[in-house]
Amino acid sequence: MSKPSEEAPFAYDGLDRVIHEKARLGILTSLIAHPKGLAFADLKQLCGLTDGNLSRHLQVLEEAHLVEITKTFESKRPMTTCRLTASGRRRFLEYIEVLERVVRNAVDLNEAPNTPMSRLRPRTA
Amino acid sequence: MSKPSEEAPFAYDGLDRVIHEKARLGILTSLIAHPKGLAFADLKQLCGLTDGNLSRHLQVLEEAHLVEITKTFESKRPMTTCRLTASGRRRFLEYIEVLERVVRNAVDLNEAPNTPMSRLRPRTA
Repeated sequence: MSKPSEEAPFAYDGLDRVIHEKARLGILTSLIAHPKGLAFADLKQLCGLTDGNLSRHLQVLEEAHLVEITKTFESKRPMTTCRLTASGRRRFLEYIEVLERVVRNAVDLNEAPNTPMSRLRPRTA
Repeated sequence: MSKPSEEAPFAYDGLDRVIHEKARLGILTSLIAHPKGLAFADLKQLCGLTDGNLSRHLQVLEEAHLVEITKTFESKRPMTTCRLTASGRRRFLEYIEVLERVVRNAVDLNEAPNTPMSRLRPRTA
């Protein structure tokens, strides 16, 4: 995964745009909490999304191979289940590491401004 | 600021879209590190952005009153300085608190999936 560059310490290249979108962050957090998957209706409720918005974001996540979606029937009613893929879980956790670095940089630099960039606490401290 | 809702714990409403954009996150972190402001050229380098991209993002931040931009002359050469506004600093730090909650939720729920939502550690723990 990308490490902070000496030249551009705040480029944050590791913030994958597919994951970084606010609604998709909520979806991925919900799914990491439920390794066996979540029904569309539960996911919608946890993330406070409309049917249309959730469908649109799930499609983006599925195309990026972060999420897999299965459609089954339960008592003759269609049922959509969403689950993180193995690589989706890994990529989401890598993203979260970069996000942790963003938080740490902002907190540290707010408390001690004008810190030389070379003194910034490393990513995995 | 917005608190996590019981019904939609992963809606992350506090993630202000103006701040959440990846390049703008880098710009705001650079500026929080330099309370007296930064020259355009330094900001460009810290964030690894092109002139055009940095200008575009600064305009968005200025329109949202997060950043103020002053143009002066130094040895007859035009000089652009960027600085966080007082409310920009406050709003960025509020945003960072929400981001911290995102990180904590993801880490906690990855380690202990199927945790009841009511047991999620509060935002300011």
